[in-house]
Amino acid sequence: MTDIGNNLVKDNSATSALAIAAEKIEEKLLKLLPKAVDLEKQVIDAMEYALMAGGKRIRPFLVLESAKIFGVGESSALRVAAAVECAHTYSLIHDDLPCMDDDDMRRGQPSVHKKFDEATAVLAGDALLTLAFEILSHDQTHADARVRCELISFIAKALGANGMVGGQMIDLLAENRELDRISITRLQRMKTGALIVFSGEAGAILGKASPQRRNAIMGYAHDVGLAFQIIDDLLDEEGSTEELGKTAGKDSAAGKATLVSLVGTEQARTMAHMLTDQAVQHLELFGDKAENLRNLAKFIINRAN
Amino acid sequence: MTDIGNNLVKDNSATSALAIAAEKIEEKLLKLLPKAVDLEKQVIDAMEYALMAGGKRIRPFLVLESAKIFGVGESSALRVAAAVECAHTYSLIHDDLPCMDDDDMRRGQPSVHKKFDEATAVLAGDALLTLAFEILSHDQTHADARVRCELISFIAKALGANGMVGGQMIDLLAENRELDRISITRLQRMKTGALIVFSGEAGAILGKASPQRRNAIMGYAHDVGLAFQIIDDLLDEEGSTEELGKTAGKDSAAGKATLVSLVGTEQARTMAHMLTDQAVQHLELFGDKAENLRNLAKFIINRAN
Repeated sequence: MTDIGNNLVKDNSATSALAIAAEKIEEKLLKLLPKAVDLEKQVIDAMEYALMAGGKRIRPFLVLESAKIFGVGESSALRVAAAVECAHTYSLIHDDLPCMDDDDMRRGQPSVHKKFDEATAVLAGDALLTLAFEILSHDQTHADARVRCELISFIAKALGANGMVGGQMIDLLAENRELDRISITRLQRMKTGALIVFSGEAGAILGKASPQRRNAIMGYAHDVGLAFQIIDDLLDEEGSTEELGKTAGKDSAAGKATLVSLVGTEQARTMAHMLTDQAVQHLELFGDKAENLRNLAKFIINRAN
Repeated sequence: MTDIGNNLVKDNSATSALAIAAEKIEEKLLKLLPKAVDLEKQVIDAMEYALMAGGKRIRPFLVLESAKIFGVGESSALRVAAAVECAHTYSLIHDDLPCMDDDDMRRGQPSVHKKFDEATAVLAGDALLTLAFEILSHDQTHADARVRCELISFIAKALGANGMVGGQMIDLLAENRELDRISITRLQRMKTGALIVFSGEAGAILGKASPQRRNAIMGYAHDVGLAFQIIDDLLDEEGSTEELGKTAGKDSAAGKATLVSLVGTEQARTMAHMLTDQAVQHLELFGDKAENLRNLAKFIINRAN
């Protein structure tokens, strides 16, 4: 396993650690994509287009770092990281559809239904979700099939009607409704939090960690995930479309309830700081092994300064 | 395990065996649906609406009958049958979307995007696909996690870009193109055949059957599945919307390539007969245990007479 910890001595070098991990993930994703022999090539091209559009790759980074903490080999971790990125990318493709958030831009380029068409976008999302499960079920992911089933069970819960899909449903129905802070944090926990928590948890599952250590990494991922979401909302409120790579101000224009719109930018920034502090405290158990995750927390909070 | 074989002495009683199985499946599906606590109720309502819309439940019937042949307990078989029906229902919901086959009717009632809206339909399909994998990964499905992973791996292949999704992509791109018989059978093998073959194979996986017996049940499912598809296309060509419960004549109006449009109704009927004969021959290995599956083949061919 390559030690990329040295690249993270200063907190702004978190970006380079992310970049190194992103490169590995992308290489793995390309290997895991299905091959086409006929007209189905179009849906595989769309899957590749969406997967290779860049992005910070924070979820697979969490998987890889969590796996390192729990002593898991990189080849297992990379497969799980790739599965998580497939699942995340599926959700972006479907969320961008005209009937959902109707977004023409994603990661600085046309979203899948603009580049291809809506049918291809629906199918590419469907196939990526399916691929995530196929990857996890394969015996190369972990020698112990119980571990593979545990990964599948937990990611399915994170993605399903009580997780990401349910969160997106609430988000769509909540437009122009008044949600209180409890409802908003629940929505975000379901829509984006659940997969981020799974990304942290995955290393603990692979490494058969103790409940205490598993809870600690999940706590970190939960807090970092919520901080990340708040800062995304802050950037959406304050940033430009160019910086974001997607349409800025869209959520507030659509009347979407976010914590930022509820409590204001200053208080939201304070909450994000509090959450990243708390996230770092969860890492105490892991000592030096968690250095990259500490730096990731700093990187996330610094995006908002 | 209830023995429903006696209900199938005459071939027209296949419908009653199907009805008995359908009732069990529906009961199981209702138990396995996620519970809602907030606005995500809408997506769960849509999942239930689609799952409970009726249908012949041929795929779950295949799972249950195959499981019986291989001596698998009904509680395992019902979970796998439910997962297969979730996956099948997801594909119907997404296929009916305006950007896909644009069908307002399904199983005699408004399709999900008409009853709810497009966003809810996309999400309900996504959540049903996810639920299928969650069900399979659970230790109640089979005590041996390797068996659960094998089920997940094979259903994922059947559903992915080299299976159902790829078949739907080809189907959409093939409108008004001339496909030859090889391309059409490949398309149908991917789009509908793969999940039907898996439904037969599932019992063999659960029962850890020998390769010979596993191949035999897969051969049966493959041939019955293709015959079923041909007859569906014949009914689409000749039938009324009322009988079908979906819009009749739609595929030929859309210029969709089917075996029926390529070889004509008479030759297609002959092929369907040949396929069901061949399907029944695959069952020789299983003796009396396969009586319900023999009757299913007769039931399918009789739909076209």
